[in-house]
Amino acid sequence: MDFTISTEHQQLRETLRAFFEAEAPVEEVARYDREEEFNTELYRKAAGLGLCGMAFGEEYGGSAADQISLCIAVEEVARASAALAYAWLPTATFCAKGIARFGTEEQRKELLPQIAAGTMRMAMGLSEPEAGSDLTHLSTRATRDGDDFVVNGQKVFTTGADTADYLFAFVRTEPGASASKGLSVLLIPREAPGVSIGTLRKLAGQSTHTCEVFLSDVRVPKENLVGELGDGVAIIFGLLDAERIYVGAEGTGLGQGALDMALKYAKERVQFGKPIIEHQAVGHMLADMAMDVQTARLLTWQAAWRLDRGLDCTMEASMAKVHGSEAGTRCANRGMQILGGYSYMIEYGMERYWRETKLYEIAGGTNQIMRNTIAKQLGRRGL
Amino acid sequence: MDFTISTEHQQLRETLRAFFEAEAPVEEVARYDREEEFNTELYRKAAGLGLCGMAFGEEYGGSAADQISLCIAVEEVARASAALAYAWLPTATFCAKGIARFGTEEQRKELLPQIAAGTMRMAMGLSEPEAGSDLTHLSTRATRDGDDFVVNGQKVFTTGADTADYLFAFVRTEPGASASKGLSVLLIPREAPGVSIGTLRKLAGQSTHTCEVFLSDVRVPKENLVGELGDGVAIIFGLLDAERIYVGAEGTGLGQGALDMALKYAKERVQFGKPIIEHQAVGHMLADMAMDVQTARLLTWQAAWRLDRGLDCTMEASMAKVHGSEAGTRCANRGMQILGGYSYMIEYGMERYWRETKLYEIAGGTNQIMRNTIAKQLGRRGL
Amino acid sequence: MDFTISTEHQQLRETLRAFFEAEAPVEEVARYDREEEFNTELYRKAAGLGLCGMAFGEEYGGSAADQISLCIAVEEVARASAALAYAWLPTATFCAKGIARFGTEEQRKELLPQIAAGTMRMAMGLSEPEAGSDLTHLSTRATRDGDDFVVNGQKVFTTGADTADYLFAFVRTEPGASASKGLSVLLIPREAPGVSIGTLRKLAGQSTHTCEVFLSDVRVPKENLVGELGDGVAIIFGLLDAERIYVGAEGTGLGQGALDMALKYAKERVQFGKPIIEHQAVGHMLADMAMDVQTARLLTWQAAWRLDRGLDCTMEASMAKVHGSEAGTRCANRGMQILGGYSYMIEYGMERYWRETKLYEIAGGTNQIMRNTIAKQLGRRGL
Amino acid sequence: MDFTISTEHQQLRETLRAFFEAEAPVEEVARYDREEEFNTELYRKAAGLGLCGMAFGEEYGGSAADQISLCIAVEEVARASAALAYAWLPTATFCAKGIARFGTEEQRKELLPQIAAGTMRMAMGLSEPEAGSDLTHLSTRATRDGDDFVVNGQKVFTTGADTADYLFAFVRTEPGASASKGLSVLLIPREAPGVSIGTLRKLAGQSTHTCEVFLSDVRVPKENLVGELGDGVAIIFGLLDAERIYVGAEGTGLGQGALDMALKYAKERVQFGKPIIEHQAVGHMLADMAMDVQTARLLTWQAAWRLDRGLDCTMEASMAKVHGSEAGTRCANRGMQILGGYSYMIEYGMERYWRETKLYEIAGGTNQIMRNTIAKQLGRRGL
Repeated sequence: MDFTISTEHQQLRETLRAFFEAEAPVEEVARYDREEEFNTELYRKAAGLGLCGMAFGEEYGGSAADQISLCIAVEEVARASAALAYAWLPTATFCAKGIARFGTEEQRKELLPQIAAGTMRMAMGLSEPEAGSDLTHLSTRATRDGDDFVVNGQKVFTTGADTADYLFAFVRTEPGASASKGLSVLLIPREAPGVSIGTLRKLAGQSTHTCEVFLSDVRVPKENLVGELGDGVAIIFGLLDAERIYVGAEGTGLGQGALDMALKYAKERVQFGKPIIEHQAVGHMLADMAMDVQTARLLTWQAAWRLDRGLDCTMEASMAKVHGSEAGTRCANRGMQILGGYSYMIEYGMERYWRETKLYEIAGGTNQIMRNTIAKQLGRRGL
Repeated sequence: MDFTISTEHQQLRETLRAFFEAEAPVEEVARYDREEEFNTELYRKAAGLGLCGMAFGEEYGGSAADQISLCIAVEEVARASAALAYAWLPTATFCAKGIARFGTEEQRKELLPQIAAGTMRMAMGLSEPEAGSDLTHLSTRATRDGDDFVVNGQKVFTTGADTADYLFAFVRTEPGASASKGLSVLLIPREAPGVSIGTLRKLAGQSTHTCEVFLSDVRVPKENLVGELGDGVAIIFGLLDAERIYVGAEGTGLGQGALDMALKYAKERVQFGKPIIEHQAVGHMLADMAMDVQTARLLTWQAAWRLDRGLDCTMEASMAKVHGSEAGTRCANRGMQILGGYSYMIEYGMERYWRETKLYEIAGGTNQIMRNTIAKQLGRRGL
Repeated sequence: MDFTISTEHQQLRETLRAFFEAEAPVEEVARYDREEEFNTELYRKAAGLGLCGMAFGEEYGGSAADQISLCIAVEEVARASAALAYAWLPTATFCAKGIARFGTEEQRKELLPQIAAGTMRMAMGLSEPEAGSDLTHLSTRATRDGDDFVVNGQKVFTTGADTADYLFAFVRTEPGASASKGLSVLLIPREAPGVSIGTLRKLAGQSTHTCEVFLSDVRVPKENLVGELGDGVAIIFGLLDAERIYVGAEGTGLGQGALDMALKYAKERVQFGKPIIEHQAVGHMLADMAMDVQTARLLTWQAAWRLDRGLDCTMEASMAKVHGSEAGTRCANRGMQILGGYSYMIEYGMERYWRETKLYEIAGGTNQIMRNTIAKQLGRRGL
Repeated sequence: MDFTISTEHQQLRETLRAFFEAEAPVEEVARYDREEEFNTELYRKAAGLGLCGMAFGEEYGGSAADQISLCIAVEEVARASAALAYAWLPTATFCAKGIARFGTEEQRKELLPQIAAGTMRMAMGLSEPEAGSDLTHLSTRATRDGDDFVVNGQKVFTTGADTADYLFAFVRTEPGASASKGLSVLLIPREAPGVSIGTLRKLAGQSTHTCEVFLSDVRVPKENLVGELGDGVAIIFGLLDAERIYVGAEGTGLGQGALDMALKYAKERVQFGKPIIEHQAVGHMLADMAMDVQTARLLTWQAAWRLDRGLDCTMEASMAKVHGSEAGTRCANRGMQILGGYSYMIEYGMERYWRETKLYEIAGGTNQIMRNTIAKQLGRRGL
């Protein structure tokens, strides 16, 4: 065991922290959310820092960062702006990794450098109205027709779809095959005829829209298939552990943000003759926040470390997801109490943390579904 | 002990439920919040139903309702629209009661009928930047000058001030007097010269603004004094128990709303082959919600019943406030998990409950301050 | 709604409190538990007070008390001694009510007066090694042979069996019938040949033993059948709501005991220059205890009140059971923290509350099973 | 960061696990507790394995183990027997380290080898009736008289004192000095005239008694002073971080024990037609247990790692203490629910975990006091 944080990791955090404090101040993030406009400039600048190429190799313009670096990046992005996280994570981790690992060399050469440069974004097209965590009910179908696939169906919760270049879509290519075997991944251009996108208003991070995507006889060339026919489930499960770890890192980052903000306030705000940090009710909430952040970070990093080494980490990743997201929510919740009435005011920023963390208990499989997974793994290999 | 709900109470709830379902549908409430516009028409209609005169007698246009009726009304208003609650409660309970109990007959005759009719609203002017729960630091001062008071200072968190007719302001009239004795209440017309109001953007209920009020040489006739000079603390403490009970009722109503919505969804939504209410993880959350709502309601009503009988209820009211608000938050939190991704979408309404309940753990004295009060009462008279 | 506690209820509580303070001091209860000896004298004296006849009518020596009186009695018994509760509740409520409601007039006349007098005790024989909450797996069988039943099988968790006069046993009389229909109740004399009883050492209340009962060709006259053949399930379900309510009352009573003890200590114990109740960390725990006790009591009494009126109360009783037992556990847990090192010492009595409350989250159907029931009822009739 | 568990650490755990499974089976530990007899043989055998010399160097018969090794040892001892832990930890860590670090070379040479061999034990004499966490009220005094000190006073919660060879006693040597400066440490032989010891019965681990020690004109040679006059506070604070870390490890070990036992049961026990691990209510509790154990271990090990490197770790150690002990309690609590009725029976062993973990939220400074410390450190250096 070695808990030393390497100089590289430390520098990565400091660089990102400074970048976001300069480029994404609280009031500007709030303004974009309020105006429901995507902040393209911030995305490009973040890419300029190398954020968008971390998940793949130098030959495609990336940096092949280790997983703990990715966790640190996720923490800092989450702390700065949920909307940025919503656009960045699916593109730069899930979809980019899917292409790097399962795509053809042509796809890699064409797409990854653009992703790294921040000039191309993708949105995950997985959930459907009747299929959340239960993949067997996915019904969007792609039928082969000559050199094309013809796609029909509907996706929901496709965050960022309206400004993305591609939908990284899970489609049913073999209707007869057993439920999970018939799934494949197609890159569907947002501009393709037959794609229509509606946006949903949501609780947080509204500068990146969450969308419904309607697919009506959308024609996609067969070259847009990622991996082989029927690889859909392999792609999901091959990338899922990482996604869960990153959700844990989101919770950690938001929890750290809430702690820093509440701590600063509690040291400055005086009531009944002393700074409120000296009132036990406040001091103890801060202590609980610190324990939540620290345990979330360690659990997340341990899972990340296992992923890097190719060790089985489904249980660890799921635990990081559940504990990280719930730790984040608890921290933001306590931060609200500590700031009192000011927490409710948008300009202070605490309410944003509070709104944003809640998502991570839900997205990527609710924490209830995740606990099913953990229990199953425990039954299989214990702790 | 008799737990029978009277026909009158039952009818009151049904009337209000039907009224709000017709007049304040989810999407319209959300629209007003989004556009940050006060819904004057809804307020007037609610007054037409008698909601604004419940706290005082028929001779002034009211109905002198019992406290359990008030709790039921608060539950239903909270469930329908936080913004309405933010405007209605200070006017129709705190300020109206203050006037009814401490005001002159002239004030009662002039103001209360307008309040009952929904044509006059008041905003509470208590908190200041340096004084939240610690009244000794209130520094807005009113100096007698001929037949007027001249007021200088600043108030914060004065919800509804920008559309109210009066600020029900706590001001320091005797600077030399011991901290809490020198406070008095003045009705300051919103339109008076020297009053300037800034609005703050906030987490929920934004169709009723929360404001900062700057008072600069504001001249108010001495007839606007409510009660005697130095009655400020008596007025606060005379009304505080009721306010705490109503906050408990807000939590109860929001919790009930979240439960109803989640229950409906859980019976309809099918995953893994059965309605999700049949999955233990969901069913158990619903069970916990029901226990929270039921205990919050009973605790609130017990305190209300004591208040009606003139029994000491500071401990009971504080417990109703703390438990009711936290029960509401827990319910909304679980409701978010049950609706999953849909909970995050504004059109479903669950996220509104979730944003709105959080306030009640903070406003009216944070639950930390309230627990101080409960502990003090326990030390004095046990349970 | 009327939250007045009647003079009769108030007097009942005071009488019992005084009785137990005199007759069951902390150190004596601890001594009986330690020596694992049943306190027959205390049981008889309690019966002398009328405690054992509350659940049936005067014609059989009882007092037909209302359910809130029973809850008060349960609270005070639980607070005084778990061991007494373990012997008293099955006899004086479950079994006595079963006989009163389903038994023959001969059974009632013979058994109930002895129960009322405290000279006869019964133990519940329901659980089996392979069947806890799942009744379909009960396998103890009674075969008719002439005027007798011949019983074979095994019961577990039959608390008090080794000193009881009868086992109130659920047996399978119709092996072919659908799982729950073939159950009947037989009164099996403890002294009958073929009954052998082993005692288990347990966490709390050890002066009343929890037993395993082995039944090997036990011959029981057909007159010992309670109700008709196949009435077993009707008997269970007819009595279960009441039992759940009483478990809620046990939690309430233990919670109140823990609160009283912790409050007294916190007012007397000085650390860092002031009584520890004035440290927020302690004061807030006391406040939380008070809210738990008060909500548990209200929920329990509301269910009791419904039961008295013949209203459907399965959901209310289950909620009282879950919330009451968990409230009790939380209170005892906080009481342990407040007493600090002293809580761990047997002579102070807090650790006894802590050990005893835990049972009620488990017995009578674990709180997990209870939440299944609550969810089912919510699905059926909402809240 | 490197989360690899070294072969040495892994082997240490396996060796201890096997040793305790062979030498300290559940029923035997329970028997010693019940008979309130110290298990000298087990202590000696454990010493034979090297357990008692881990905290000091080879020159005194020890092994100077790293802190993570100590944490692993504490986990395994806690899992096996609280009574052993109660005797071993004060002797082999606190007192042995105090002597190794502050003692004279003569003391080290004489005492440490005997400690390593398991033939000498010491008990901590810190708490007094009026002084728990508040050291300023310690009043046991030692007055210099010729070559001796004469000690008068009283200690409480001196676990293991009645079978220890020495009391490692904190005494006030300079009554005039500011409260915390006047403390020194004296080794008081248990057999010295004037020492009288009473034992207290307690909730768990009763085979090692917790004692009151009365000191009446006890004469102790000046050679028994550990460190210089007035070093008492330096000794406490120099050793406290380690003690807190070990308490975190106790919670971790007990949590792991509860998880292992509950997991085994849940995979075997069938209800409603499937192993109960497949019921969500049970599976999710197991998942929560696993997250608690894993986070407790990581937090504890991180603090241990910092201690080994001489880094400031007061905050980390305090967090390990609080989170580890509360995680342990939560795990045991869930374990109780999972085993249902069987959890309440002594032979299954779960109730022992449950009783034992509770201590660690209290001992070594209650978790409330610990949160004060964490908050103070956060104020100073953030997280």
